[in-house]
Amino acid sequence: MEQHDHAAHVGYSGDKDQIIKRLKRAEGQVRGLQRMVEDDTYCIDILTQVSAATKALETVALQLLDDHLAHCVTEAAQQGGDVAEQKVREASAAIARLVRS
Amino acid sequence: MEQHDHAAHVGYSGDKDQIIKRLKRAEGQVRGLQRMVEDDTYCIDILTQVSAATKALETVALQLLDDHLAHCVTEAAQQGGDVAEQKVREASAAIARLVRS
Amino acid sequence: MEQHDHAAHVGYSGDKDQIIKRLKRAEGQVRGLQRMVEDDTYCIDILTQVSAATKALETVALQLLDDHLAHCVTEAAQQGGDVAEQKVREASAAIARLVRS
Amino acid sequence: MEQHDHAAHVGYSGDKDQIIKRLKRAEGQVRGLQRMVEDDTYCIDILTQVSAATKALETVALQLLDDHLAHCVTEAAQQGGDVAEQKVREASAAIARLVRS
Repeated sequence: MEQHDHAAHVGYSGDKDQIIKRLKRAEGQVRGLQRMVEDDTYCIDILTQVSAATKALETVALQLLDDHLAHCVTEAAQQGGDVAEQKVREASAAIARLVRS
Repeated sequence: MEQHDHAAHVGYSGDKDQIIKRLKRAEGQVRGLQRMVEDDTYCIDILTQVSAATKALETVALQLLDDHLAHCVTEAAQQGGDVAEQKVREASAAIARLVRS
Repeated sequence: MEQHDHAAHVGYSGDKDQIIKRLKRAEGQVRGLQRMVEDDTYCIDILTQVSAATKALETVALQLLDDHLAHCVTEAAQQGGDVAEQKVREASAAIARLVRS
Repeated sequence: MEQHDHAAHVGYSGDKDQIIKRLKRAEGQVRGLQRMVEDDTYCIDILTQVSAATKALETVALQLLDDHLAHCVTEAAQQGGDVAEQKVREASAAIARLVRS
């Protein structure tokens, strides 16, 4: 209950199922990577799969960011003042971490 | 004049001098790269300089994005409606291009 | 048995335990992300964790590449000819995928 | 003369003209960015151009790396010993800088 109420306040509420589905797929890819290493799979084939897993995580990050801008940042902007500024600063820092990772 | 008036409406107005200074430095780095190639500089040393130029451009991009969120997106959010949604969509697409480049 | 013999031929044989340990940690991070989403954790905190998981995978990729250059590519170079050329082409393509992902 | 002799020893000798052409184009893009900022171009349009310039530099980097592996690293591998190991270590470090930039 508590949680359901809270859910209304995170930007990604509407995309929760899709995000979890994507993360489960990424988890499967990372587990698949372990099997590949254990089976002495050729390095290049493992690298291809690492790129796929990285891309999957990137897609999740971009979806979360889009939801965050569309909800949390937008609402803060409507309130204005310090909260709005802080949300933008926070979002920019998260974008910088993503771009540099 | 026109232009000066217009300047008030771009998110990065306050940071214009700094952004141009950074771009001039990046331009110098790219010109330096041409000299390095012409002088048959060792590949690895050129690669180090390419990474530096790429990072300089990334810093400009992150600054522009921060300004864009702090001004254009924030103002659109305050107006609400379709404009707000469109600005977020546009910003998210620009972030995706940056993360993937 | 078969497999153990084969192990001698992959570039990362000597780092296998460390790579699997890192992948297990990355898997734990991705599972942690699912819990964070289920618990309606604040978007920005999830994004921080996504960046951490992406970095962990990147570290694995760079380790695999280093091993690949040090063993597979080096051995192919010593044989020379088409095999050497093909290995370099393959490694370059894998590097391009990583840089662009 | 000196230089021409030296040219034979860098990995990218055969691609020099193409690399310089690409760098000149990247320089033009960075100069174009300065004009865009001076003309108060819309942030998002500038960001699109920054991504294009970054991609152009990335392409140069990947070409240099490919040439480096195909020539310098391959030749060092054929010599074997410490030189070979050092070249691989150096190439891996350059790849890591690129992946993380």
